[in-house]
Amino acid sequence: MAKEKKLVEAITSMEEDFAQWYTNVVKKAELIDYTSVKGCMVIKPAGYALWENIQHELDTRFKASGVENVYLPMFIPESLLQKEKDHVEGFAPEVAWVTHGGMEPLQERLCVRPTSETLFCDFYANEIHSYRDLPKVYNQWCSVVRWEKTTRPFLRSREFLWQEGHTAHATAEEAQERTIQILNIYADFCEEVLAIPVIKGRKTDKEKFAGAEATYTIEALMHDGKALQSGTSHNFGDGFAKAFGIQYADKDNTLKYVHQTSWGISTRIIGAIIMVHGDNSGLVLPPRIAPTQVMVIPIRQQQEGVLDAANEVKDALASAGLRVKLDDSEKSPGWKFSEQEMRGIPVRIELGPKDIEAGQAVIVRRDTREKITAAIAELPQKVAEVLSLMQSEMLERARAHREKHTYTAATKEEFITIANNKPGFIKAMWCGSRECEEEIKEKLAVTSRCMPFEQEQISDTCVCCGKPAKKMVYWGKAY
Amino acid sequence: MAKEKKLVEAITSMEEDFAQWYTNVVKKAELIDYTSVKGCMVIKPAGYALWENIQHELDTRFKASGVENVYLPMFIPESLLQKEKDHVEGFAPEVAWVTHGGMEPLQERLCVRPTSETLFCDFYANEIHSYRDLPKVYNQWCSVVRWEKTTRPFLRSREFLWQEGHTAHATAEEAQERTIQILNIYADFCEEVLAIPVIKGRKTDKEKFAGAEATYTIEALMHDGKALQSGTSHNFGDGFAKAFGIQYADKDNTLKYVHQTSWGISTRIIGAIIMVHGDNSGLVLPPRIAPTQVMVIPIRQQQEGVLDAANEVKDALASAGLRVKLDDSEKSPGWKFSEQEMRGIPVRIELGPKDIEAGQAVIVRRDTREKITAAIAELPQKVAEVLSLMQSEMLERARAHREKHTYTAATKEEFITIANNKPGFIKAMWCGSRECEEEIKEKLAVTSRCMPFEQEQISDTCVCCGKPAKKMVYWGKAY
Repeated sequence: MAKEKKLVEAITSMEEDFAQWYTNVVKKAELIDYTSVKGCMVIKPAGYALWENIQHELDTRFKASGVENVYLPMFIPESLLQKEKDHVEGFAPEVAWVTHGGMEPLQERLCVRPTSETLFCDFYANEIHSYRDLPKVYNQWCSVVRWEKTTRPFLRSREFLWQEGHTAHATAEEAQERTIQILNIYADFCEEVLAIPVIKGRKTDKEKFAGAEATYTIEALMHDGKALQSGTSHNFGDGFAKAFGIQYADKDNTLKYVHQTSWGISTRIIGAIIMVHGDNSGLVLPPRIAPTQVMVIPIRQQQEGVLDAANEVKDALASAGLRVKLDDSEKSPGWKFSEQEMRGIPVRIELGPKDIEAGQAVIVRRDTREKITAAIAELPQKVAEVLSLMQSEMLERARAHREKHTYTAATKEEFITIANNKPGFIKAMWCGSRECEEEIKEKLAVTSRCMPFEQEQISDTCVCCGKPAKKMVYWGKAY
Repeated sequence: MAKEKKLVEAITSMEEDFAQWYTNVVKKAELIDYTSVKGCMVIKPAGYALWENIQHELDTRFKASGVENVYLPMFIPESLLQKEKDHVEGFAPEVAWVTHGGMEPLQERLCVRPTSETLFCDFYANEIHSYRDLPKVYNQWCSVVRWEKTTRPFLRSREFLWQEGHTAHATAEEAQERTIQILNIYADFCEEVLAIPVIKGRKTDKEKFAGAEATYTIEALMHDGKALQSGTSHNFGDGFAKAFGIQYADKDNTLKYVHQTSWGISTRIIGAIIMVHGDNSGLVLPPRIAPTQVMVIPIRQQQEGVLDAANEVKDALASAGLRVKLDDSEKSPGWKFSEQEMRGIPVRIELGPKDIEAGQAVIVRRDTREKITAAIAELPQKVAEVLSLMQSEMLERARAHREKHTYTAATKEEFITIANNKPGFIKAMWCGSRECEEEIKEKLAVTSRCMPFEQEQISDTCVCCGKPAKKMVYWGKAY
């Protein structure tokens, strides 16, 4: 029994130390493990199954919008990386360099892709000649490398998995449409599938992607009041096209530069799922993304008929299209409950001899712990209803948490007080100058998250310098 | 019209120059493109869609057999690579080395994984403690890097995509069972889905994987009579476990070493599809793996009603679960036929005003060019039948080709005559010595492909040295 308690005991509570709680959960829920490769992680079956579901959901949405998948090399020759000035400045300090192939030094060193704009541009310069070749709407699922100094599982690691879409269009309007279309796909996916509400907006020039004309973002609020940038979509205009010479002959027979976009979402989003929905018993997975939605846990399974009944329940739920498992291991029911809770499986079904006699079972929701007794024959329908309700209530709860932790500051004093005392988003006006952003960041460790599409007029003047305001900005401390 | 002819004209015939034909097909069928990164390729949408289908088919089979997917880092510290002696000797000469992260030199250089045995062993040494932790049956889909000097699309490139399964078991028997189970999954997949017949067998010690106790292989014969190793499954025994200290406490409370396997299939298999089924009009895809199975091509599409009818046909086929597209571009029908043939789309449907009047359409098989007239209302059923027949006939044709190009040699003279004049497999006896293998390779550029599971007694003596024979071997020139 002493050993059995360990699983739950080993978790630090989130109120005590949120960072430690997070680290405990990713390990105890068996999402990742550390490796001998500093700053890199193993994504274990429970973590990778989550990523596979995320991939499937996004890939289906991408393809419905005309995206085609491709695969480009993982290496970028140094000369290619240097072709776009802002881009190389943004990435060169944090790439890994390959200098030897086999026993020989390379003539030109290669970086392991931190992102693939330069490779796609090189590719498109060969592929695009005429307006008939446009648009190109390509995406790849791959891993990328950024040589981060401090790392945390999912949130910041030297290697991570993501998708990166790269498109080329005939006109600026079409590129802008695609940029926003993808941002909306990301936002809908986060809200509908991950039950994570997001703020859609545009990044300030200071925070935009290296080489982009405009960067759009979805920003989510974690349970501890910190923000997480959860996906970005960039409009490059024709900047990269000019640097790489990507031109097409238009219908009027003149040569024109293409307009490009890129957009990505990564395994970082798994960090958001953990930090938005998790609690002191571990992970809580939204039913639509959970690899296992239901765990059937028999009580007194050694008694005759219990395991048979549990298997029948499992089969009935599976036939109804639910992702269900049966835990018939030799552990105690209490231990199994703890494991199911730690792993965030949305509901469990408790089924013992007395339940079977009464023709019923108990459904326990992971998020609220609510217990629902239901007739065994009605379980498939009942569990589906519980999962559906849980999915929508998780979104509403996360939205309510965000609203509760979103503050407005009309003056500098208000801003400082909130920033120092109330973790969350701060809505405040901004004059548009980089100096004000830098001052706020330096003094308060708060950054501009985005200029939201839904603007409000909090006051007339910049919360930092007092000059006339141009935009309302969401500010916050961020991961 | 001059421009329209180009597509087909640009292909060298396979009889004239098979290597050039292959290069033409991969480019013209738009499977790949070359890049600024020497030895690496872009896998374009048509090529990547093929790989996605291969992944889906294999992944489903793997999961049904208990495999779970994970993701391990792409980097291997040099000290880790060196832990197993044979393994490092096999791979160190052909890996890419990362020596700098950002602006700083690394304390220890990292190689980009050429394969991940060492990482999995390092991981398993942490994960496995008790018999309860076994078996581990993990797989990952990723890219790997081997610094090849001469490269060819799909067949040999510096970076390629694959899956690598790595398992750990309590007993030698269980490891051997898993090794063969996966080999059978590979073989069934190749035959059932890719219509590629394969020889299953064991590699000689000379040809086995660096660090393995035994390597099993599936070997396929290409149209030009050369062999292609199409998938391998290795039994490591406890060699790696001893090098990495992977031990578990058994039920009897003694510490034992685990027994391990690994197995992989890569984008190389796309090369096999091309070289087994392709012809002088381009690619020929087996229906079960083809991303697009049917192309509807309207004739005189500007005439009223033609495009409507073509769209109705497309919708009817899609509703029947077929992967179908309509080519309503402004190209001529002849050009569209050439494109559909080059891309290997299994059947096309020709539909013009006269067909529509007669309530019929023409189905054209890509492999035989056979034309089948069918009533429009019966198209979904008829096309499904044609695709099913084509799938099985492609396998039979490939099998007949292989049988026709499989020779037996009882004496050294016969062996030399066949090796020098008849491209194909040679079945011949072998004494088991490495010297004989090396002599044959050096003099005839022929290697041992495998010791097939289905042994025959061609003669009593080794075809090279004349000593008593131990095994019948499939020999051949190989990619």
